[in-house]
Order: sequence, then C-alpha cells, then structure tokens
Amino acid sequence: MAAPQQFFSYVDGNAGSFIQRLAKAVAIPSVSGDGSSRKHVFAMAEFLAHEMEALGIQVNSVDLGNHVLDGEELPLPPVILGSFGHDPKKKIILVYGHYDVQPALVSDGWDTDPFVLSPDEKTGRMYGRGASDDKGPLLGWLNVLEAHIKSNIELPVNLRFCFEGMEESGSEGLDELINSRVGPGEFFDGVDCVCISDNYWLNDRTPCVTYGLRGIAYYKVQVSGPQRDLHSGVFGNTVHEPMTDLIHLLGQLVSTKGEIKIPGISSLVAPVTADEMKRYEVLDYTVADIEHSAGAQVAISDNKTRVLMGRMREPSLSIHGIEGAFSAPGAKTVIPARVSGKFSIRLVPNMTPENVDILVFRYLQEEFAKLGTKSALKIENLHGGKPWLADPNHWNYRAAIKATETVYKKTPDLTREGGSIPVTLTFAEALGVNVLLLPMGRGDDGAHSTNEKLDRSNYIEGTKLLGSYLHEVGIISKS
Amino acid sequence: MAAPQQFFSYVDGNAGSFIQRLAKAVAIPSVSGDGSSRKHVFAMAEFLAHEMEALGIQVNSVDLGNHVLDGEELPLPPVILGSFGHDPKKKIILVYGHYDVQPALVSDGWDTDPFVLSPDEKTGRMYGRGASDDKGPLLGWLNVLEAHIKSNIELPVNLRFCFEGMEESGSEGLDELINSRVGPGEFFDGVDCVCISDNYWLNDRTPCVTYGLRGIAYYKVQVSGPQRDLHSGVFGNTVHEPMTDLIHLLGQLVSTKGEIKIPGISSLVAPVTADEMKRYEVLDYTVADIEHSAGAQVAISDNKTRVLMGRMREPSLSIHGIEGAFSAPGAKTVIPARVSGKFSIRLVPNMTPENVDILVFRYLQEEFAKLGTKSALKIENLHGGKPWLADPNHWNYRAAIKATETVYKKTPDLTREGGSIPVTLTFAEALGVNVLLLPMGRGDDGAHSTNEKLDRSNYIEGTKLLGSYLHEVGIISKS
Ligand SMILES: [Zn+2]
Ligand SMILES: [Zn+2]
Ligand SMILES: [Zn+2]
Ligand SMILES: [Zn+2]
Repeated sequence: MAAPQQFFSYVDGNAGSFIQRLAKAVAIPSVSGDGSSRKHVFAMAEFLAHEMEALGIQVNSVDLGNHVLDGEELPLPPVILGSFGHDPKKKIILVYGHYDVQPALVSDGWDTDPFVLSPDEKTGRMYGRGASDDKGPLLGWLNVLEAHIKSNIELPVNLRFCFEGMEESGSEGLDELINSRVGPGEFFDGVDCVCISDNYWLNDRTPCVTYGLRGIAYYKVQVSGPQRDLHSGVFGNTVHEPMTDLIHLLGQLVSTKGEIKIPGISSLVAPVTADEMKRYEVLDYTVADIEHSAGAQVAISDNKTRVLMGRMREPSLSIHGIEGAFSAPGAKTVIPARVSGKFSIRLVPNMTPENVDILVFRYLQEEFAKLGTKSALKIENLHGGKPWLADPNHWNYRAAIKATETVYKKTPDLTREGGSIPVTLTFAEALGVNVLLLPMGRGDDGAHSTNEKLDRSNYIEGTKLLGSYLHEVGIISKS
Repeated sequence: MAAPQQFFSYVDGNAGSFIQRLAKAVAIPSVSGDGSSRKHVFAMAEFLAHEMEALGIQVNSVDLGNHVLDGEELPLPPVILGSFGHDPKKKIILVYGHYDVQPALVSDGWDTDPFVLSPDEKTGRMYGRGASDDKGPLLGWLNVLEAHIKSNIELPVNLRFCFEGMEESGSEGLDELINSRVGPGEFFDGVDCVCISDNYWLNDRTPCVTYGLRGIAYYKVQVSGPQRDLHSGVFGNTVHEPMTDLIHLLGQLVSTKGEIKIPGISSLVAPVTADEMKRYEVLDYTVADIEHSAGAQVAISDNKTRVLMGRMREPSLSIHGIEGAFSAPGAKTVIPARVSGKFSIRLVPNMTPENVDILVFRYLQEEFAKLGTKSALKIENLHGGKPWLADPNHWNYRAAIKATETVYKKTPDLTREGGSIPVTLTFAEALGVNVLLLPMGRGDDGAHSTNEKLDRSNYIEGTKLLGSYLHEVGIISKS
C-alpha cells in the first residue's frame, strides 16, 4: 500500500512546525570549513541528536578524533548514527545527510541574514544557508518519522541514519568509519539500499531521481626553469620561459569545443545505449536552461542531447588556473620561474583515476618533449575519484519514481549529474547495495552561493516524497 | 687634459669619508612605493639638498604636488634641481639620479639590516638597499665635486643636477616637470648632453657604456563567458570555457624558442649593420654568464650573439600571468567566468607602442575568431613606451669610453639593455641632445633583490670614472 492519506494530512497540517524545525537548524551556523565556527557544528550535532532521540531513534554520535585545519588542530564533528526499527520482515533503508554548511557572510552579497531562515511570503522561497544543502532534506526524514509516530502509522521499513558534519570540507574520517562498520552485527550490516537526499532537480519545474555521478582526476603540471623570477626586460628572448612552455602544453589538452585531445580517453568512455539515449531526449531540461543557469549564451552546442550528454555521460576537461604566475590586477613585467597549471578531468564509466593517469602523464610528457625547451616538467595527480553509476531499473529507483508520481503527479527526470558526491560511491562499494539520489530542492536553490533558498513547497512536498518513497519500498518488501 | 692626478689622489685619500656619505644615505629608508615610508623619502631629499648646498650647488627642490597611492593621498617627493657653474666657455652637462629605493625587509631574506650599510671586509662588498640603485652613483657626483673643490681643481664643465624621488614608483610628475623647464632661460636650457648613472655592467668584470634600451607594450587580453564562476562538475563540457579559449589564444603569441608569431612584427625591426654585429661579438658576456645570472641552464640558444641580440636588439614577448583564474595552492574545481592574460612585448627600433598595437589587436581578433567560441574578447594596452637608441659614436660616448679606459685600463663593453629607463627617452626627446648611460655598479649587484650591494671598488673607481668623464668632455669642449 502506498503512503496513507493520514501521513499527507499530518505533513500539511504541521507544515508550520516543520518550518520552525528548519529555522532552528539554519540558526546554528555550522560552517565546517572555518575553524572559528567549529563549536557551532558541534551545537548542530547536539540539536540533531536531541531531535532524533525525541522521536525514539537510538542515537550514537561517533567521535572521529582530531584534524588540522589551517594549521590549527580541531576536534572533528561526530558522525551521528541512528537506528529506528528492527523488524526482520522489513527492509533496512539507510539514509544519509549532512548537517554542516558552506560559509556565508552578509558581506558576500546576501539580501538577508544567512543564518536566519527568511521566508518570502509572495514567492514561497525560504532563504538561509543550509536550507537546501542539506538541512532541509535531512530534517525531511525527521518530519517523516514524526508524522508516522504522531499519526500512529506503522513505518513500513527499518531506518538507519548516517548524518555527518564535515561534508563541505572533504568528509574527513567518514569513509574510514563506514568501512569499519560494515561487518556482521555492525551498524551498516543488513542495509538493503541507500537513499541520499543531497542534490537538486535539473530545473525549477520537474522532480528528478539521479542514478549517476562523474568522478574526477585533478592534475598539477609544473614547468620550471630559472632559479628565481626574472625581469622580462633583462631576460626576455634570452631564456626559455616556463609560462610560454606551460601555455603551449595546456593548449594541447582540450579544444574550444570541449573535445579532450588526450589520445585514448574517448575509447575508455562506455558507449551509449539506445535506452540511455532516450532518457536524455525526454529530460525536461533545455539548452536555454543551461544558459539561464550560466547567466550567458555560452552553451557548447545548440543540440540539447549533446549538451546534456556533455554534462551527464561524457568526460570534460577544465583548466582552472595557474599557480606561480602573476595573477593580481595591474601590469607586472615578471618572467615567473616556476608555474603550475591546474586542470581536472571529470570521469565517466569506464574511466578511473588510474587508467586516466597513465594516458595523461604519457601525453603531457610527449607533448612537452616536442616543445624543445630546457624547462623542466613535473606532473602530479592532486586527487581522484571514480565515477558512480547505479541501475535505474532497480526496485530502489522504481520506488522513488512511483513516490514522485504520487506526490508531484509527474514522472521524474532520470538524471546523471556532472559533479561528485564521494560518499555515494563509498556506500555503493562498502555495502554492495543500490544507492539512490532523491533530491528535495530545485536547480536554482543556489547551494554554495549567496541567497541559498529552499522553496516551501519543496520542503513540504519533499517531506511527503521521502515518506512515500519509504512506503513504496515497503510495498516491494512485502510483495 | 684628462683628469688631473690630484683628483684621483683625493678620491683614494677620502674613500672612507665617501663611504660614510653612502652609509648616511642608505640609513634613510626612502622607499617610494610604500606610503608609510614617504616621510623618509622627504628626509632623504633634505639630506641631499643639504649635502649639495654645502658643496656650493644652487639647489631648487621642486614640489610636484600630491598623488594617490593605495587609496591614500600623499605629497610627492620633490625633484631636486641643482646648478654648479655658469661659464659660457664650458659645456653644460646634465646628470640624473634617483634618491628613492625599492622596498626591503629583513624577512624578505636579507642577511643584514637593509638600511645599514654593511661592508664585508673580505669581499669588499657593501650591502644595503639603494647602495647600487641609485644612491651610490648619485653620491658619486657629489664626491666628484667635493674632490675638485677641496683639491682646488677647476671643474671642466658646468653641471646641472636632476635628482628625483619617485623613480621606483613610476617617476610620477617627472616628465611634466622636464617638459615645462626646457624653454629659453629655463633650467634645462642649454644642456649639451645628459649622463645617467642608473644601470649596471653586464657582468662583474668589465665596465660598459650603454647606448640603447628597449621599449615596452603591455597587454591585457580578457576572455569572458558565464556571468559568474561555474562549477566544473555541473558545467564542464556544456559551456565554452573562457580559460580554454584564453590558453589557446596565448598559445599563438610566441614559440617556445622566443619567436614572436604576430605577423608584421619582425619587419618592423631595424636590420643589423655589420658594425653593430661586431659589437655583440666582442662583448665580454657569454651564454654561461646569462645562465649564471638566471640560476639555471635555460638559455634560448648556445650561440652567444643570438642570445645577446635577443636581449639587446630584438623584441621579446613574455606571458606574465592570468588574472581571474584559480591561482592559489590546492585544487579548486572552478570554471572561471572571466580571465585576463597579461603579456608584454619589449620594443626595439623601429617598433612603437602605436605600430605594434595595430598588429597585436588585429592578430588577436583574427585568432580569436578562428576559435569559434561564444566567449567575448576584450583587448587593452595597459601601458607602453618607445625604445631608445643613442649614437655611440657621439663625443659624449667617446668621452665616457676614454674615461673608462683611463680608470679601469679596459675598453668598456658597448651595450644595449633589454629593459626600460623611461627618463632616458624623455631627456633625449625633450632636450634633443645625446644621452649616455654610464653605470657604476656590477651586473650581480642585485638591485631590486635581497642583499643588494655595491662593491667598494666600484664606488671609489666609479667616482673616479664620473670625474674623468667630465674632464674628457671638457677636453672636447675646449678643442
Ligand atoms: Zn550537500
Ligand atoms: Zn554542499
Ligand atoms: Zn635605479
Ligand atoms: Zn631601481
């Protein structure tokens, strides 16, 4: 049976109190990337644990030890593990969320205090740091549980919660924790599938479920020559200049049309199936949406499928900048002695940081040799992560699609995303189960930007969506 | 008659007191580029004016008004104009120097206090900011005058002094002052030639006189696309990336061998004469010297003449850096929305900022069009200056060469320099007379670097050189 009507009624009837819960959470500036806010991240963990315990969840706040941030040793915020239900006849659903947020200052350009949830009655938008990323979705799960308890509806699944406080700062310690708790009798033992609500619809109209993420391989290419920076008047046209060499090298990486020039990359990319191709064609997302979101008419093609595939299932190569060169305003006449180009490649199946590394290193070395310079080359892989792809025909996805149709009266877009959410891959690999990304917010929420918001309707209907999803999973377990 | 023996004896006999004079000057931290040091620049002007008046020079410290530095309105240090001698039978020689210095902090890596002249008795090196650039040479002129007065030797020329306090910060106000004082009866009226001692030998062995300087044209090439920085995960391979476009564009400017690829540039360069060619061949400066000075084996050729011509009489193009891209350490996955490449071209006769601008703008626009990108291009010339070339066969040069041979028992290298000293061109054009660059210091003095030094022998023999030069000019005037 799908989610009962009392559940929906309770959510509608208690929207105000749910928004109050979100307001309390937004009021705690749990910025993980700024050492001076660390106490607020801990306060947020306590607030959450308290809310969870009040709902009858067994809570275990796991201490992850210390780490060093900007030279300062700091305690890591705990990972909050929670359990609700131990019925062997029901599936065990693991939900993940994070209670830390990105930094936010009024002086960055916020129109309201970022740490006061500020609803705009006319548009229904509720502004505040973390409203959409990821406090709204995380509290959505608590709202669902409250609705069931207060309405005396039996929860159709066993729930496990994994809420972390360092997601915006590299999820330090999380992978180790997960991998240490997967054995028999451990916290993650027996989980049937995972649901993560920490992404967004493609647009502001159509809900989606997401079954893929790109990986990344990030490179630093250093070219060095003189022992120290030189004056271009004195040394121009007498020595090999590392900047000239680096610019030539970076120019061999990718065409202005986005084609990666590194031999062997394209043959690593899994071919498109007809089934997959159709998914891009039906997505409610246009070239105009991409350009609206970039703020300018700069799409790499007029062909919607080409553009969407460029984001979702093709690799990309972006040159981010150069370290060690003159980067300030003004006109300095320096020949920099040592410059490092930074670029990264977004990975898709069947690319891995390892098989891409081999191609990148070999190509850069070959192209550098062609330059005939006396400068020296050094290549480093700064970090890497594999792409993730789930089977969108799995029951976990079928449940999410059904729930979306129930709540939004619309078939959700079936999407893959261009960025990375590393924990997705960790869960998939450590638990060996299907992982689903089920977003609450819209594409224009501005996570990580100024004036982050969550629409009231997304919060309330999103809470219904999460609850309905559990019931759809429950139906499958019983059938 | 060449400089009399009493002059040389006086200089040798008073070396200690001349070094004391330099020590007093170095002790005044007259850093023109730092507003908080401005009072010291004024103190230095007062010190100088006082020394000059004590020698009987008529001094006029010219107020140049105010300027704005880092948002702060500050009074400009005066230009000190001085006159000594009004004998119509003698030539009028204008000497230029600057009494301001580059910034210096012990924490930059100085081994001694930069504002305490610190002689190393073993090597004869005297360390201190401004020792070589340009307090030593400037005080050299006062030493010469003192030696003549105290030894009762008649000065063979009329002297005019022009000492500025803003050379290290763009010589603000100087050009206007010079141009306003060239008319009949004005300060610069009747000047027969100019001698500037504010450059260096090529090496640490052989004195030189310098008859040419390169000019410069400095460009900022901005490529813009998205309205704001984008996330490479979300937007990689969906939009045209300004960094990719800019890297391709900058890659079209110059080869790794230093050849400028902009059509039309090479045909602006004046052809080499046989006479000029011979000068490079005999210079006491090798590829090994260049590489020693760059601190690495990175010379653009093994051919000495090619390398020296690259610095002295060929243009060069250096890419200095990129503004607006990711330039910090670490790994940020940004697609920068607007990036500006900075590059400059060193100009030689017959290049001018104007004729080069036309070629650069047209070429960049054409190459950008070929990229087929939707990004936008904007090109700016940030600043420019013409090259300068004097006739090394002029009597002003013959006098300097003769004086060098007398003092150092060596024929000086006849050099052109790769950088710019804008006041050289201003004097040449405003006064219409021959300008000579007659250095006191050595190529390894480290002007603008940590541990700047002037060798004791260069200060003392250099003082003799400046005096001898005046006598050689005097011979010519009488003959
Ligand atoms: Zn998030
Ligand atoms: Zn986030
Ligand atoms: Zn100088
Ligand atoms: Zn200087």
